[in-house]
Amino acid sequence: MKEFALVFQGTAFTSRSTKEIEILKDYLFCINEDGMIEKLVSPESAEYEEIIKQYEFKDSFHRLEKGQYLLPGFVDLHVHAPQWAQSGTALDLPLYDWLNTYTFPIESKFSDIEFAEKVYDDLVRTLLANGTTTVLYFATVHKEASILLAEICAKQGQRGLVGKVVMDNVDQCPPDYRDKDTETALKETEEFIIAVKDLAKSTKQGVYPVVTPRFIPSCTDEALEGLGRLAAKYDTHIQSHCSESDWEHEYVIDRFNKHDAFALNDFGLLQDKSIMAHCTFLADDDAELFAETGTAISHCPISNVFFSNGVLPVAHLHSKGVDIGLGTDISGGFSPSLFDNARQAVISSRMLEEGVDPKLPKETRGVPSSRITMNEAFYLATAGGGDALSLPIGKIEENFAWDVQIIDTLIPSAKLPLFNERLDEVFEKIMYLSRPENIREVWVQGNLVHKRN
Amino acid sequence: MKEFALVFQGTAFTSRSTKEIEILKDYLFCINEDGMIEKLVSPESAEYEEIIKQYEFKDSFHRLEKGQYLLPGFVDLHVHAPQWAQSGTALDLPLYDWLNTYTFPIESKFSDIEFAEKVYDDLVRTLLANGTTTVLYFATVHKEASILLAEICAKQGQRGLVGKVVMDNVDQCPPDYRDKDTETALKETEEFIIAVKDLAKSTKQGVYPVVTPRFIPSCTDEALEGLGRLAAKYDTHIQSHCSESDWEHEYVIDRFNKHDAFALNDFGLLQDKSIMAHCTFLADDDAELFAETGTAISHCPISNVFFSNGVLPVAHLHSKGVDIGLGTDISGGFSPSLFDNARQAVISSRMLEEGVDPKLPKETRGVPSSRITMNEAFYLATAGGGDALSLPIGKIEENFAWDVQIIDTLIPSAKLPLFNERLDEVFEKIMYLSRPENIREVWVQGNLVHKRN
Ligand SMILES: [Zn+2]
Ligand SMILES: [Zn+2]
Repeated sequence: MKEFALVFQGTAFTSRSTKEIEILKDYLFCINEDGMIEKLVSPESAEYEEIIKQYEFKDSFHRLEKGQYLLPGFVDLHVHAPQWAQSGTALDLPLYDWLNTYTFPIESKFSDIEFAEKVYDDLVRTLLANGTTTVLYFATVHKEASILLAEICAKQGQRGLVGKVVMDNVDQCPPDYRDKDTETALKETEEFIIAVKDLAKSTKQGVYPVVTPRFIPSCTDEALEGLGRLAAKYDTHIQSHCSESDWEHEYVIDRFNKHDAFALNDFGLLQDKSIMAHCTFLADDDAELFAETGTAISHCPISNVFFSNGVLPVAHLHSKGVDIGLGTDISGGFSPSLFDNARQAVISSRMLEEGVDPKLPKETRGVPSSRITMNEAFYLATAGGGDALSLPIGKIEENFAWDVQIIDTLIPSAKLPLFNERLDEVFEKIMYLSRPENIREVWVQGNLVHKRN
Repeated sequence: MKEFALVFQGTAFTSRSTKEIEILKDYLFCINEDGMIEKLVSPESAEYEEIIKQYEFKDSFHRLEKGQYLLPGFVDLHVHAPQWAQSGTALDLPLYDWLNTYTFPIESKFSDIEFAEKVYDDLVRTLLANGTTTVLYFATVHKEASILLAEICAKQGQRGLVGKVVMDNVDQCPPDYRDKDTETALKETEEFIIAVKDLAKSTKQGVYPVVTPRFIPSCTDEALEGLGRLAAKYDTHIQSHCSESDWEHEYVIDRFNKHDAFALNDFGLLQDKSIMAHCTFLADDDAELFAETGTAISHCPISNVFFSNGVLPVAHLHSKGVDIGLGTDISGGFSPSLFDNARQAVISSRMLEEGVDPKLPKETRGVPSSRITMNEAFYLATAGGGDALSLPIGKIEENFAWDVQIIDTLIPSAKLPLFNERLDEVFEKIMYLSRPENIREVWVQGNLVHKRN
């Protein structure tokens, strides 16, 4: 028998479909040298006892303790890394004012590489401790600090996809926080792509450069076009914001006489590895364009409460065949946890379905059939994120990366209220009630990257 | 100078009004033998150094460490203690079905006193660990288990206000989970009141019996009337549910041809120590009746998402002079934390203001001026709860009980993202980002009731 690098024994929860959970009870999970899941072995299988016998006294064998469960690591599709410094503050302004009064000033500080290191190191550590194994990051306009963020991911073992942000439109960006000019923006983006691709070679889990126009308002046509060309040339991921708020949505209609989706597509920015944040105001033909091009939505339910003027209709967009994952949107969203965001995704969908104003008659208060269940929110946080990025992550399944979190439901300081439940109920309680404290270990690509004692 | 039982030195946050926070920077907090705050001493005061000199080497002196802050203990105005066993599950049904399929069956198990002890002990410990120092509990119909809950509060040092639930309406309650008959319901309620008042004498922080008709549908007219009389005779608190959901609201209109508020008032159930859960469908004249009678609302924002078909208009009701506090409503709400509920109170108010359906024009999407800030949500969780209960709790102020939580923002495993903020920003980050792990100590009436090492 071939030698495995790691063998885990325990019970795992993973998505079988957008709506259904698969429970792998007392399985063996066999991981190869590359950190990929080579084989899942059920207790009924003939080789189950044989593998245990072969591995149980080796260091490579990990038996989960009573009350411990495996979940896939979370995939966070939208984080503004520099904004970690202001997380949980300044949530009272509309998007335009919030950007100009708080966000651009704090991002401009990331020309200071020492400050950048302090914030980014703390953020990556915090996200890992929250069970997040893969993150799609916006950095800032600064090339050096953006490369530093990729280096910190590489070092801490997180699968980071990082974008140097492009903002070259002098009408919409403050003079002290924007690219010098369009040419520099494109040149530095290309240098950034090359540097991160080079860095990636030294990592097991991978780090990735991402072409990142901040959003249409902050970019010139020339920059958008140039970025589309760079993404094609280097086959990179692409990220931006799309149809986020009333203001942003209307700005693009004024400038291009079309919605964000079609404008972005004209510049070659919608493709299978494109991920667009928010998309609250996507019309049906925008959604169809997303489905055709393979573009995914990064749904950020907490952030949307503060800056999006409405709830993303997740159930409707899933029915249209659009890929959707979950994002914290630090710091439009205050929480670094995808547990919190999965809870809010369920909550927001229920509020869309029920409506909010008790003065309206119940028949017209909400939008019927909008709710999603916790199973679907879990899908968004895991497999949906993996699909969005076109990477073999987000599921506990053969030929997927060993990116997992081990949840302990019984530690005395954060015991979940378990009193003899079925396993599907244990899963629900984990999703609704876990704290970072319950996350005892986090693994990325077969490497242990976070552990609590 | 008079001897204090305890002296704390540190920085505290407390409500100055519904909208404003008071920051007590580097104050001394002097606590007397009864566990009440006798004196607040500012660093500018003449006696500041003198008191430090007198106490600093005594065991009674507690200096907060760098990164630690004092908040008032939280006041949770709505917990169904038995439902802790099902917290975080079964949130997909409408209220009526949820009660009959899940909730009544689990509550009926509390005839088993051993099961009750296991669940109640775990719940009280969990709430204290979440910074909640005072709780208004619904127990079950069972007298013995309800007394047991009060005993567990007494023993663990929590200020518990506990109600034996009355459900005597055979039309609306299952045969295996209701009071035997109206007479027994009233007799057992009276015995329960006497037993808890007796128990209270042995506690420093107080435990209180609460007259508790579950809600109008589950009670006969005779029971409601009898409970009004018992509350007056023994001067107890009163709790129930009021205008929670479309179904419940319409049931009461059918039965009494009026809204819950006026029906409850007819039975003598609205008064200064009355607290009514939810109240989502309160009309303006209902709200005026609440303000006149001193009846308070227990706002349960997480639970309301699942069972209330709308958002409570907190800002509007505050403007009408109604007292409002915060409740977790375990297990209609999944979280035992009032931090989580304060966050959701802000979120729900924003969603009421913005509206939820992006297909609607922005002018008619939401209800203008509905938002509350985190300062107001904090008020609800602390001083608002104290006001609702007419007890000197929920503020760090002279002649209030020393009910506090010590928040540590710097512990390595749960460090908040602090990078040189002003104190009002530190407060916001605490409210948006704290976990139970950040709550290092909890004190009730001058007793240490929870500590993490
Ligand atoms: Zn964003
Ligand atoms: Zn309730």
